[in-house]
Amino acid sequence: MTLDPHPWASELVTLHAHAWQRLVRGVHDRHAPARHPTLATVSPDGLPATRTVVLRAADPSTGRLELHTNLHSAKIADLMATPVAALHVWDHGSRLQIRLQADVTIAAGPEVAAAWARVPEHSRTAYSSSQRPGHPIPGALDYDQQADPAVFAVLSLTIRAMELLHLGADHRRAQFTRASDWAGQWLVP
Amino acid sequence: MTLDPHPWASELVTLHAHAWQRLVRGVHDRHAPARHPTLATVSPDGLPATRTVVLRAADPSTGRLELHTNLHSAKIADLMATPVAALHVWDHGSRLQIRLQADVTIAAGPEVAAAWARVPEHSRTAYSSSQRPGHPIPGALDYDQQADPAVFAVLSLTIRAMELLHLGADHRRAQFTRASDWAGQWLVP
Repeated sequence: MTLDPHPWASELVTLHAHAWQRLVRGVHDRHAPARHPTLATVSPDGLPATRTVVLRAADPSTGRLELHTNLHSAKIADLMATPVAALHVWDHGSRLQIRLQADVTIAAGPEVAAAWARVPEHSRTAYSSSQRPGHPIPGALDYDQQADPAVFAVLSLTIRAMELLHLGADHRRAQFTRASDWAGQWLVP
Repeated sequence: MTLDPHPWASELVTLHAHAWQRLVRGVHDRHAPARHPTLATVSPDGLPATRTVVLRAADPSTGRLELHTNLHSAKIADLMATPVAALHVWDHGSRLQIRLQADVTIAAGPEVAAAWARVPEHSRTAYSSSQRPGHPIPGALDYDQQADPAVFAVLSLTIRAMELLHLGADHRRAQFTRASDWAGQWLVP
């Protein structure tokens, strides 16, 4: 007899709780897989785009996540056109794929002053207005980024649906939706 | 004086070659980061969707990649509506983010018989027609997958653009497009 290393995967309630535990861990542990999810958006011309992001907040009680970005980044233009994002985490230790679909709102200016105050000094140059991220430059290092709180934006993700795939000795797949109050439904993997 | 651990990141030509080397490595080494990219598509209702995939082939000379999937999976419906995908890899060892945009064609039936013949026996149940992936089931293990070559599909990705972000002591970002014959252009990170 061998012990199941992932007993939480067998029941919908514990599977869902484990995924949230891993997301919350990502906020607080820079080495956790959920620290750096992949964010997918749809560009104004209707094409998919992806990039790594840093998970800044995760609240299981409300089903909301938070990311930070530069107002001049391409993802802002994408989200203005289609305010829905997909977020993806592969947690190797848990053998768990977490796929989220979320409605996104963008906040900037005075209402995010408190969040800006918590951004460490050395991280603030990511929020520069002198040169837009993605702007062509002649040499690799021909850029000079000065922190500018005016381009600091907070993305609030309100999760619509969470789909989980556990690749243990058996494969289990389930979907949890806000509409069903996160009751959960097993799916064919 | 410290040696630069990633000298390839300093020049466009070597940066581009390194990214391809990492993609090719993903095909042959199941532990390489590029083995399991995140594939993003746009659903028929215009929303982003993501999932982990397995990289099956990578050819730098043509700029093409290959994935395998079940014809009944949601990504096929997505790609029928919008035949463009984004592919994302974070290669931690190289501190390199690889973002690809690609045109996708779907092949199935007799023309993929040779590819099917190379799928290991134990992997074939992923290509089952008895129960569509994502179909609701009462219990987690209430599925029975029988291999069916008729639902085995090969996705061919013809890369349009590759965007690379290297997070070394300096941050470097560059884009390479098929239209410019992969000449490369530095961008503000």
